[in-house]
Amino acid sequence: MKIVEGGVCTVPGIKAYGIKEGKLGLAAITGQGNTVGVFTQNKIRAAPVIVTSRRLPGTMNAILAYSGSANAFTGKKGIEDAEKMAQLVADVLGIDPKTVAVASTGIIGRPVNMDWIEGHIKEVLGGLTPEPSGSEAAARAIMTTDTAMKQIAVEVEGARIGGIAKGSGMIGPNMATMLAFIYTDAELPSESLYKCLKRAVDNSFNMLVVDGDTSTNDMVLLTATGKKKISEGKFQEGLTFLCTELAKMIAKDGEGATKFIEVHITGARSREDAKKAAKAVVRSPLVKTAIYGEDPNWGRIVAAMGNSGADVKEERVTLALSDSYKTATLVKKGDVVEGAIEQAKRLMAKDVIVISADLGLGTGEAIAWGCDLTCDYVKINAKYMT
Amino acid sequence: MKIVEGGVCTVPGIKAYGIKEGKLGLAAITGQGNTVGVFTQNKIRAAPVIVTSRRLPGTMNAILAYSGSANAFTGKKGIEDAEKMAQLVADVLGIDPKTVAVASTGIIGRPVNMDWIEGHIKEVLGGLTPEPSGSEAAARAIMTTDTAMKQIAVEVEGARIGGIAKGSGMIGPNMATMLAFIYTDAELPSESLYKCLKRAVDNSFNMLVVDGDTSTNDMVLLTATGKKKISEGKFQEGLTFLCTELAKMIAKDGEGATKFIEVHITGARSREDAKKAAKAVVRSPLVKTAIYGEDPNWGRIVAAMGNSGADVKEERVTLALSDSYKTATLVKKGDVVEGAIEQAKRLMAKDVIVISADLGLGTGEAIAWGCDLTCDYVKINAKYMT
Repeated sequence: MKIVEGGVCTVPGIKAYGIKEGKLGLAAITGQGNTVGVFTQNKIRAAPVIVTSRRLPGTMNAILAYSGSANAFTGKKGIEDAEKMAQLVADVLGIDPKTVAVASTGIIGRPVNMDWIEGHIKEVLGGLTPEPSGSEAAARAIMTTDTAMKQIAVEVEGARIGGIAKGSGMIGPNMATMLAFIYTDAELPSESLYKCLKRAVDNSFNMLVVDGDTSTNDMVLLTATGKKKISEGKFQEGLTFLCTELAKMIAKDGEGATKFIEVHITGARSREDAKKAAKAVVRSPLVKTAIYGEDPNWGRIVAAMGNSGADVKEERVTLALSDSYKTATLVKKGDVVEGAIEQAKRLMAKDVIVISADLGLGTGEAIAWGCDLTCDYVKINAKYMT
Repeated sequence: MKIVEGGVCTVPGIKAYGIKEGKLGLAAITGQGNTVGVFTQNKIRAAPVIVTSRRLPGTMNAILAYSGSANAFTGKKGIEDAEKMAQLVADVLGIDPKTVAVASTGIIGRPVNMDWIEGHIKEVLGGLTPEPSGSEAAARAIMTTDTAMKQIAVEVEGARIGGIAKGSGMIGPNMATMLAFIYTDAELPSESLYKCLKRAVDNSFNMLVVDGDTSTNDMVLLTATGKKKISEGKFQEGLTFLCTELAKMIAKDGEGATKFIEVHITGARSREDAKKAAKAVVRSPLVKTAIYGEDPNWGRIVAAMGNSGADVKEERVTLALSDSYKTATLVKKGDVVEGAIEQAKRLMAKDVIVISADLGLGTGEAIAWGCDLTCDYVKINAKYMT
């Protein structure tokens, strides 16, 4: 497997483009293929989530994503608007509107600005290009509080997989205001595609916590044009890698974040326990603020694990902090390691903090990603709407 | 039922005192009676939690509470120290050490400062007084990041119930770095006392969220001297009221908080659903930051409820904001109310924000309390240890 250029446009036949005008953005991607999706588990589902999920799995021709409002909690009008978005694309491209996926992101309870979309649809679709610049423009168009554009592409056994994503706040376990659109030329049946996507998302986006809130609009779509034969195993490997890299980009771009946090749990009684413990640590406001303050208050990590629902026994826990080069072991099988605090404090000055905990109870392992909690997070979110 | 003065010292026979020296504090309360307790559900339990919970239910004579370190994740030495604390009290007062409850609060992983405790135990026990000033001194001694002393007392059917509490951060559903010591002269068997305490805690401290983290040290103790006959129903009423008032004091004193949040959920499919939805709203960092910013971004409230695990249907939801005098209805059975945003924005300038949501699905109701998330919360917790 190797990393290649071009985002979604790395896949032959895929075109993309996007425009941004102030807080509004519109991205389009075209390319025919078997499409599967994974959607938010929030009981309040945005209109585009409802509309798009109904059409999948199926053969899709295009995606239109709007950044400016969530089109969530917008009732019947929301559904009509989402369907209208698909219709607009269909009209210009001469395709069936049912083969157009739609997505949106922004403030909940606000309808999409249909006038603006109608006024710009031709510009977006007219700009569609198979060049890498097209994927980049699309990735930029869907940004909201994101400060960095997020895309990546890999080649595995001759097949290409490319994706773009957005997400910065409202990121909790089980996805959250995050959109990801992934294309591949791999040839796999829908059931395999869905299975691979579900597994990749479970181990990547679903292990990501910015603030623990979960959005109404999450959507990860995967379209396979079916030109390249590839084993399911190899495809899974490439797809999981791609989703993991996109998830880490989102964690690094967490609202107001100054540090990236990676939590490795080993020795848990089960895989589920490891996931719970890992997520609880990246979710804890006390752990997140301590990391922001470079304060090696490791008791908060232990408390977060102890409160995660996972089985934890004090006398079994080994805990270390690392900047991913050097490591400071703070606790060894329940005993506090003398003098490690100072070393940990030095490591915490870095931008990447790796927390490793061996629970000493079994073979369950998991990794979760997140970021610190800062005053800037508070500021960004205190005045988001007004 | 009426509110009376004196905290725990409102109860005849109860004496209390406490001292504070820099970041260290020591509080003592004496009074013999049937004692029951409710403890943290964190898998990592502080040594005093382990020691005290083993002794309950039972007849207790005293409580010694130390503020300065959690004595959690401190292994065998922690247990020895907790037992030593009880022994010190027993030696001075000439009582059985097994009838002394111990508690502590502060940084996890740090042992208690036994030298300091030994050096001050006589001063604390020598200061014990049945005067209201004793309860106040004890309440002050257990404060950590608390900015206000917390105590209250009530009289119900001639019986007295008085309590003190501490708690400011690390407050999550199912209690958290919070200690509460409650005394009463009511006469009730241990089983009734425990049942009443459990119910009161479930509806008060367990509905309180400052940051959603749950501590290793939570402890609510209730001692009944058994001098006054009272019906279980009346006692329950008084105890629940007392615990609720203490919980609200903790929410109001949330670390860095500028606003107190009360969430009323009605019309949930079940009581459990109502609790889940209410807690999810006060727990959401996005809701908390919006309230801090006086930003009527109600979509975040809806999203938090939708993500709580409770059943929520968009078309059934009615949502209002209030300052507890005026109300702005933002959503009526799923429809956004025009013009309500401006009114909501004005109400949000107040210090008390009441969020009322009718889920329109059943008769389940619950109330939860919390506070906003501010830069000061981040600052307080970024440098807590160092």
